[in-house]
This record gives sequence, structure tokens and C-alpha cells, in this order.
Amino acid sequence: MKKQRAIFEKIGEKLRLERIATEIRNMSMDNITKTKSGHTGGSLSVTDILTALYFGRIYHPRERRLENVLNYDPCDPLWEGRDRVLMSKGHAAPALYATLAKAGFFDCQVLKIYRKIDSPLEGHPAMFQVLDHGEERGTRGVDFSTGSLGHGFSVAAGIALHAKIYGYDYDVYSILGDGELQEGMPWEACMTIANKGLTRLCAFVDYNHLQVDGSVDEINQLEPLEKKFKAFNWEVRIIDGHDFYEILDVLAYFKLKRATRTKPLMVIANTIKGKGVEEIEGDFKYHAVPLTLEQLEKASKAFLHRMEEIDQELPRYSYKLPTKEIVKTSPPPLPDNLKEIISRNPAGPYNAPTATRIGYGNCLTRLGEYRRLFIFNADLEGACGTSTFCKNYPERAANLHDRRSINVGIQECNMMSMAAGMASCGKIPVVNTFGIFSTGRAWEMVRQDISYPRLNVKIIGSHTGIALGEYGVSHQATEDVGVMRCLPNIVVIEPSDAIQADRLFEKVLLYDGPIYYRIGRNPTPLVYVKDNDFGVEPVLDFDIGKGVLLKEGEDWTIIASGPVLCEALKVAQMARESVQVIDMPTIEPVDEDLIVKAATKTKRIATVQDHYKNGGLNDAVLRAIAKHRLQVEFHSIALSGFGESGSPKDLYEKYGLSASRIMEQLGLTPK
Amino acid sequence: MKKQRAIFEKIGEKLRLERIATEIRNMSMDNITKTKSGHTGGSLSVTDILTALYFGRIYHPRERRLENVLNYDPCDPLWEGRDRVLMSKGHAAPALYATLAKAGFFDCQVLKIYRKIDSPLEGHPAMFQVLDHGEERGTRGVDFSTGSLGHGFSVAAGIALHAKIYGYDYDVYSILGDGELQEGMPWEACMTIANKGLTRLCAFVDYNHLQVDGSVDEINQLEPLEKKFKAFNWEVRIIDGHDFYEILDVLAYFKLKRATRTKPLMVIANTIKGKGVEEIEGDFKYHAVPLTLEQLEKASKAFLHRMEEIDQELPRYSYKLPTKEIVKTSPPPLPDNLKEIISRNPAGPYNAPTATRIGYGNCLTRLGEYRRLFIFNADLEGACGTSTFCKNYPERAANLHDRRSINVGIQECNMMSMAAGMASCGKIPVVNTFGIFSTGRAWEMVRQDISYPRLNVKIIGSHTGIALGEYGVSHQATEDVGVMRCLPNIVVIEPSDAIQADRLFEKVLLYDGPIYYRIGRNPTPLVYVKDNDFGVEPVLDFDIGKGVLLKEGEDWTIIASGPVLCEALKVAQMARESVQVIDMPTIEPVDEDLIVKAATKTKRIATVQDHYKNGGLNDAVLRAIAKHRLQVEFHSIALSGFGESGSPKDLYEKYGLSASRIMEQLGLTPK
Repeated sequence: MKKQRAIFEKIGEKLRLERIATEIRNMSMDNITKTKSGHTGGSLSVTDILTALYFGRIYHPRERRLENVLNYDPCDPLWEGRDRVLMSKGHAAPALYATLAKAGFFDCQVLKIYRKIDSPLEGHPAMFQVLDHGEERGTRGVDFSTGSLGHGFSVAAGIALHAKIYGYDYDVYSILGDGELQEGMPWEACMTIANKGLTRLCAFVDYNHLQVDGSVDEINQLEPLEKKFKAFNWEVRIIDGHDFYEILDVLAYFKLKRATRTKPLMVIANTIKGKGVEEIEGDFKYHAVPLTLEQLEKASKAFLHRMEEIDQELPRYSYKLPTKEIVKTSPPPLPDNLKEIISRNPAGPYNAPTATRIGYGNCLTRLGEYRRLFIFNADLEGACGTSTFCKNYPERAANLHDRRSINVGIQECNMMSMAAGMASCGKIPVVNTFGIFSTGRAWEMVRQDISYPRLNVKIIGSHTGIALGEYGVSHQATEDVGVMRCLPNIVVIEPSDAIQADRLFEKVLLYDGPIYYRIGRNPTPLVYVKDNDFGVEPVLDFDIGKGVLLKEGEDWTIIASGPVLCEALKVAQMARESVQVIDMPTIEPVDEDLIVKAATKTKRIATVQDHYKNGGLNDAVLRAIAKHRLQVEFHSIALSGFGESGSPKDLYEKYGLSASRIMEQLGLTPK
Repeated sequence: MKKQRAIFEKIGEKLRLERIATEIRNMSMDNITKTKSGHTGGSLSVTDILTALYFGRIYHPRERRLENVLNYDPCDPLWEGRDRVLMSKGHAAPALYATLAKAGFFDCQVLKIYRKIDSPLEGHPAMFQVLDHGEERGTRGVDFSTGSLGHGFSVAAGIALHAKIYGYDYDVYSILGDGELQEGMPWEACMTIANKGLTRLCAFVDYNHLQVDGSVDEINQLEPLEKKFKAFNWEVRIIDGHDFYEILDVLAYFKLKRATRTKPLMVIANTIKGKGVEEIEGDFKYHAVPLTLEQLEKASKAFLHRMEEIDQELPRYSYKLPTKEIVKTSPPPLPDNLKEIISRNPAGPYNAPTATRIGYGNCLTRLGEYRRLFIFNADLEGACGTSTFCKNYPERAANLHDRRSINVGIQECNMMSMAAGMASCGKIPVVNTFGIFSTGRAWEMVRQDISYPRLNVKIIGSHTGIALGEYGVSHQATEDVGVMRCLPNIVVIEPSDAIQADRLFEKVLLYDGPIYYRIGRNPTPLVYVKDNDFGVEPVLDFDIGKGVLLKEGEDWTIIASGPVLCEALKVAQMARESVQVIDMPTIEPVDEDLIVKAATKTKRIATVQDHYKNGGLNDAVLRAIAKHRLQVEFHSIALSGFGESGSPKDLYEKYGLSASRIMEQLGLTPK
């Protein structure tokens, strides 16, 4: 990289970048102090890295010209082929915003409304999106929402994986805080990025050694950090994060040695918290405390002074070199042919009790050729019904574009955020694991990375309810519907038999947005088949948000979700009272029209779900009852606590979900 | 350790242990096959390690006698001074159960009801507990519930920390699966255990190289594993996990070199999945698949044959050595003097708007001398109001027993499970972080490790609601009440002003069970003070589960939780209608009596909470209304989606939580 430095000396590159970095520091300090809120120290420590990424150039010795570090087009912030920057330490938003403004993504004046209401500049970065009706959300230039530490690295992994499989030619940069590495999730990402060969990913650790409460070294230290990353199979470089030559050297290495590198690149950038504002340098107390107006004035004066100095210095560098133009390429768009694939591959027949997970898996299998579909697994590939898809589109397929499945092992959080990253690139990732892990272990990833930006991720929860049986409490998801219903933007669906699980998943894939799909492990009776055990007429056209009135009745309405519907149908057969039964696969948003009709007719409504009493179907129905001021007697059949191990049958009986126990609880009399 | 081996050769220790291990394998295979469910391969691979722990002995060269590896008393499974075994790979429960039965914790006949309903042997291990009324829960000998991978190591850390601070002389052993190390959480624990000097902890990796879907090496490999652990500052030993000499050597080293070891000890035990049943050895498909009856018969025959062989061999070893008796010591119990401390340290006066986090922190400060109290932080020590407590009882206090606070850095999941581990030892850990992280990031840890065993952990959620303001969505917990209400056994409380936050926390500490305590960042007006802004009479005696009727009215009842109560009180002042206002700090279980009275009186009820519309106070109140069949008009004022950055005032106005917006939504008219 000697040649590179020699060139940079000639063209005054270092001064040029320092000029920009100083301006960025000045703008970000101004924002934080004037808005009276924001993260001072970490914004200053990361500024030089951001400057090098967005404004730096590297020298091509062969081509004898310069090339921008990052490929981006501020006028086209959603260009699919752009290099991505994942600001995993999202609290340094002020530095990122000032950088993006300086880079031309938006006017510098916008910085003044940082953290104010109705501003595009959120306290922590919000991903830029253009909604269907043209409305813009988030900040132009922000590739993904961050702020909750540890996620951004996994999102970066998902975006890098997307490039590899779908043939994009972009690089992904992830900027991590040092305290952030105390979290476990970055180590999941570390392991996966290296093992899955995502070598187009370069990560920076802004190693300023300070976190909110004090020194990283004292609180929970990271050393030997280089050895850690090496033991996770990364190539590691240690640099001075305030020396532009060192930053550019490492970036040139990353970009130019692409063909020979076999590992992702981790850059440990030694930095100083508060860098550039002398009186707060190295003081952890300025993590989230703005400079006072006096401090700001003084700092600003120093910044302006330095900029003037550089302005006088720069004209001396008359040597110029051409910079390579950005060529905006993207692979051809994938065919939008899901409907056609569905019509060519209808669901097959079912004729014996089948688990809903199998029905779901069958749908994946028959629609597998749809190229936007990508399957994530976390060591439960077979358990979640995805084996055939993954055999057809395996991780080690000869053709890269056939590798439309990945198994990351037992790391649900990383998997969820990787999927979010891939969804941010317009693909449809389906994330598979047990419900307790997809909705529980990874709840916060679903919230921050999927629900908030409303990304098109399909979240599968298998082995749900006490119907899971013998595995016991640790694996029986009985709160999953509740915790997903607590999130905005997420549709919650629980199919009641394998046929519905298969056919309704077509609609799930056609729907543009996040969906939680709750399925079960054990075979359960078929409802939507001719000559079913319950004497009901099967419909076969299911829709999101629509319930199915399966059996009419006069005295009672039982609304059920999931395979426990069969118990409700048995009640209708067993009871002397006239009981109507509604299958309600979509729990959020619930089918209010159907509830209104049922309430008007029977005046008594009961819900049945294999779920804890709080948060599930009963709360959704109760909400509709209150909203429409329906005068009904309402009963809820649900779990009053945790289950235990046992056969599904024994558990339903003991925990009140069997037909006879439902009858008893509702005071119904046998025929 | 040569001496040790020489002695073992003389006394036939290896054969003795092999005899036991064979019996354990035989029992566990029998259970799995007969119950038709359970984890075969991993039970077999870990058996020798368990055997060495529970039945192994080490030789004291100086004392010239043997000592049991583990100190335990099967007749007294809750003896506080016992060594602990954390079976982090909980799916190997059959091996653990057979081991515990063999060790005398319960009769071997109990093994037959493994995974059956009403059995003490759950599919995954359930911690043994004796409830207040004498009822037993879980499995005698199981030190903590496991099954969800990655948690057990953190729980072990909490239990080891407990020993260090409170003066117990026990060791903690943690047994991890290899696939489990793909999770991030064990790396959080790894970092913390080493950095915090928890050298009485010894972990085993059951490195059988296979996980559910196939080979660990192919799915997401761990190598170089030794270097990883070393880079996390552990002492590492690699052994053959089926060679009792090697296992005992490492255990002898762990126990005898206690005084000189400066690091925790990680034992990478190379094992074979399915070990002992030749035809399934190394076959990943037997992860959770039972042997067939034929396979079982064949295996059992081989096991019995081997036991007979050993029985013939063993009598030749006539050399005997005494084994050190277990001396059951524990430090003296801590004084049960919380009530007395409270009476000596009443809450101080408040006279200006104060954040509820400060009120809570004041309570910690004044009751800090209560020795069962232990404070966990994750880099938000100051932010959560715990600074003074942590200054009084710092992590680096001269006296170990004064070190009643710890800051683990940014690792909320590890913190939560560490706290659960400490609570399992009878202390009262208080876990501090922002609400989005305590209830979200760590939701599954709360569920599996606190809610399920109903452990006495106080979970703090600070910076909650959109009232957090400028930080924006990533940090505004607006679903926390909902996701906590979805869990059994957890009391959910949100104090409405600093005084209540301070005084009610006394009750929280006196209550024996898990509580989620929701507090806010920004100063909010005082309600429970004379001459408050709202003209209401302050009460000062707060109770868990009790609401407070602050203002009587005839037309409407507004029920509010948290600082947004002030907006409700303003409504009562502003509206022409007669509005009564109830403060409802306990959201779960909600004060049904008060709701019944209010409904009967005003016929119109509205709830107000700074929380997403699903899962919060409104659902709790609605549930009470349905349960008591109250005929009321019900309105819910809550968030319909995510918030954004802005001042709390602007946000309340925009998102409908300001007094004027509440009036508008309820159709109330200004005076």
C-alpha cells in the first residue's frame, strides 16, 4: 500500500478528508447541543471512519486512477446495487446524519430538526423506505434501522448473503461499538459470516474503550480482541481509527484483494471517545451528554479555524488524478410469477391426520421455484417441515442462485436479523424455528428489525402450544401469539389443519409484510376435507383476515384457532345446545365482521386456544366485542399457566382444552 | 496427576465408574424408548461426564484419601452448600435423571414415568422446589430448569457469583452442548465469568460434533474452539470425554489447584454421540429419536453383559482407601430484617417533578443495607437510578460481602439468567436496564428462568413509553407491559409518580416472586404530595394489586397507569363532565374490585396508558369487565403503532395521550 500513500501525499487526500471530517464533527456537535439530546462521544470517535467510507478514495495501481470507497448515489438512495453501511452502533446517528447530509442525501438544514417531532432524523437511525403510496419514511441514505446494539452486524450478514446468492456486486460495511461486543449476538454473526464465506463484508470496531457507565476495560473487557476475532476465523487488522492513511490502506486492501481474500475482514480501529473536542476526549461522561453552549462555541471555533487552515493548505496540491465513475448495475429483476407458480402447483390431497407443520412444508416445496423465496433454518430444518425445500435448494448447490436455504445452527437472534437484512433487499425470507424461539428468544429482533420497518419476513413458529406434548414447558410456546400481537404491523396466523396450513401459506407469501405463522408438531385431524370427522362442509379458499363459519348454531358461538378447533367441533357434535363454530386462523387482525354477526346471533361467545390466557385469540375477540359494543356473554378457554410434559391428549384433558373439558367449563350438557 | 492414576489403577476406579455409567446408559435408553420420546444421542455422549461428577472421586496426595467430586446429599437436595450442576444442554435429561436416581435422589422406578403427565420428570429438566405449603415441584436433584439452549451457563455464572459474594464454599459445574455454542449467550457468559473472576466454575463442552440437523462442523463450525475459549480468558483442557482417567484428572486439577488457578476452567470433552450403542454411534439422526424396541433389547443385552463382566472383575481390586466425609456447612443465614430497615429508613420528601426511575433508585438507596438485595446492571447503572446503591455497595468493595452490585456491560440476556441463578440461591436480585431490553431482548430468559420457576427476581424496565422522547422507537418500550403480562406468575407494576415509585418498591421487595417494575426517564409531576397540581388528596400507603381512587366522579371513570396519570387528572379538571380517576399501578393482577365499583357507578370506563394498544392496561381492564359481566361502555386510549423521536410533550400531543387529546377521543367537553 506504499504506492497508495505516495499518491495520497501528492494529492493531499489526507487534508481533504480531514476537512470533511472536521465539518461533520462541527455539524454533529451543533445538532446534539441544539437539540439538547444525543450521543456526543461516540459520534466524534467514529467520524473519521465514516468520512473515509463516504468520501475516501483508493488508488488502483493497475488502472492508475482513483476509485470511491463506497458506491452510492445520493439521488437514488434505494439503488439496489449500492454498497451498504450498517451503523450497528446506531447511537452515533448524529455523525452518520452529518455525513449523509454532506454526501448529498439531504440538505444540511434538515440536521437542525434532528430528534424533533415529524423529523426524518430519528434519535437512532431509521431505514429509508418509500411506501406504496409514495410516502417516504426514515432517513435518505440510512440502509437499515439500528439503535439496539448487536443487531446491525447480523443484518449486514443477511445483506451480504443476499448479494452472494442473488448475484449483486456490492460490499457491506458494518460499524460496531466496542461495548456492543459484550453482547452475544455479534459473536453469532461473527461465527456465521466467516463460516458461510461472506467475504464481501468488512466490519469496523470503533474501539474507543468507553461505554455508558465507564471504561470497557473495567466493566467487562474485550481483550485479547484480535485473538477473539481470529479464533472466529476473521482476518483482523488493527489501525489508528483517526489516521486516514491507515483507514484507507485497510479499505484498499479490502476492495482490491477481493479475489484472493478467503475471510471476512475485521478492522479494530483504535479511537478516542470525544475525538476532536479536546476537553471531553476520553471522558466517558460525554457518552450521551451534549456539549454545553459554551463548550460548543469553543469547539466550533476550533473546527472552523482548522477548516480555514486546511483551505489555505489544500490549493498547494495541484496533482490531480481521475476518479472512476460509478457504474450503476444490478442483476435483472426476478420474475414476479408467484401467482402463476401457485396456479401450476396446487396443494395436493390430504387424507390422514397430518401436522400443520407438514402442510406448511408442503406449500414451501410446491412453490419452491419462486426465486424470491429464501429459507432460513436454525438447526430445526427437518422439525419445521422445510427438508424438501432445503434438499431442492441446498446451501451447497452447485449454482449460487440455487442456494436458497441456509442453516445457521442454533442462533435464532442472528437468523432473525439476517432475514431482516435480506428482506430489506426485496426478497422473501422465511425464518424457521420453534415458536418459543422465533417469538421469544428473538422477540426484540422481530420488533426492531422487522416490525418497526415492516419488512416482508415470514416468521414460522413450530411446535407450539401444549399440544407439543412430551418436550415440556421449555419448548411449548404458549405465549407466542400474545407477544407477537403486542407488536405493530405483524399479522398473526394459526392454521387449524394441514390443508389450511398448506393453502393459506400461499396467501402469506403473496402478502407484502411481516407475518407470524403458528404451526404444530403432532398430527391432527383434517377439517378441510370431505367426509371429515366433524360433519362440516369444507371450504378451500382461505384468506388472511377472514374467519370461517364452519357450523351454524343458535345458542353458542365457539371461536377457535389452530388444531384445537377439532375439540370445538366435537363440542358442537356432543352438546345438546346448538353450538356454532368459527375457525379463526387470523388472530391479528381478527375478523370483526364475523364476530359481530356471531354475537348478534348467539349472544354467547367462547374462544378456545392452546395458549396462555393473556394475549391470545380471546383478547383479540374481546377487543372486537368492546369496540363494537356487543352485548354478549364472553368466555375464554385457555391456559391459566404453564403446561408440563405428557401426551397431547392427556394435556388437553388436564388443562381444559379437550372437548369434554370445554363443555364442562361452558356449562354445556351432553346430548 | 500421575499419583492419582496410580491409585485409581489400584482400586479399580475406572471399572467402578464404567459399571455405573453402563447402568445409567441402560436406564436412560430404556426410558426413552419406552416413553417413545427423548434425546438419545446426546444422553449417551454425556453419560460418562455425569458419572464422573456424581460418582467420581479424586485422590488427595497430601491427605492420602479420596474425596467425592461433587458435594451433595440426596436426602437434602436443597442444601444450600451443595455443589451445583447446570445441565445447560437440558435435552440430555434422560441421562441426568438416571444419574440422579442412581445417586439416590429418587427411586429408579420413577424413571418409568419420564415425560408422562403428572410426573416429576419433565421432558427437559425442571428445577426442584418446595413451595410454601410444602408441595414439591420439579425433580429432586435438579439445580435449575434448562432446555432452552444457552441459558444454563449464565445461570451457573449467577450461582457462582452468589457463592463468591455471600461466602459459600461450593463449586459450580456447567455442561454445555457443542451446538449450543453457536448461540451468542454462552459467549456473554464466557466473557463475564472470566472477567469477573468466577474461578469456582468449571464448564464441560460435550463435543460430540453432531446437532439436530447434522454435523456441527458442516452447519456452523466451532473450530478453533480451544483458541476461542482462550481468547475469552479461560483455562482450557481438552480431554477424551469417555476416558474416566482423563475426566477425573481434570476434575482433580479443578478441585485441588483452587488456590492457584486464576481463571475459570473449560473442559472440551471430545465425545461420541450415541456412545455405547454401537449401531447409532456418530449418527446425528438419533438426536431425538428413540431406539426401536429391537435396538433397545440388543443394547440392553450388551449393557448387562458388560456389567456382569465388570462385576466379575471388580472384586480383584482389594486395595481400599477412605473417602472424605461430606461436611455440610453453610454460612449463617442473613437477617430477615427488611421490614425493620424500611421502618428505620422511610421515604424522604419530594417537592418537584421527578422521574419515577429516581424514586425507585431512592428506595434502593435507603434500603441498601438489606443484605439479600443484589443489583445487576448492564451498562445503564446511572440511567436506571442505581448509582448511589452501587457506590455504597460497589463491585470492587474491599469486603466481598459488600460487593452487592455488578455491572456486566451490555449483555441483558446473560444478566437476566445470572440473576435467576442468584435468586435460586435465595437472594433478591434486581435487574436493571431499559424496558425494551429487560422485557424484550431478554424475554425468553425471563420466561424460562424466572417466570417458569417463579423466582424472586425484580425486573426493572426504565425509559419506558413514548414519554422517553428523543431516543426514538428503538429505545421506547411500548410493548413491555404486554409481553410481561403474557407470562404466568409475573406481577406487572407501573408507578405513576416518583413518590409511589419509591414507596411501592418497598412492597415489591417484601413480595416473594417475580415482578416487572416499569419506570420512566423524564421528570414528571408529583401526584402523591400535598398541594399537587391536580387538587387530589394524596394517599401514601400503596399495595401490590390495589388501585387508588384519586378523584370521584359520576359520568366517566378514567383508569391510568404510570406518569400519564397526570394527563387523566388534568382531564378531570378540564372536562365539564364529572370524571373520576383511578390510578392503577398494578396492571397484572389488576384491581378487579375497584373496576367493578367504578363500572357500577359511572357505566363508562376509559383506560389510558403510554403503551401499544395490545397487551397493556386496557386488556387487563377489559378482561375484568368481561369476567364480571359488567355492562359498560369501554374506551381505550393507547398507541396505535410505534412512536418516534420528539419531546415527550409533543409526542403525547401527537399520539393522543395529552389531556386535550384524551378529551377529544372520549368526546368530553371543556368546561
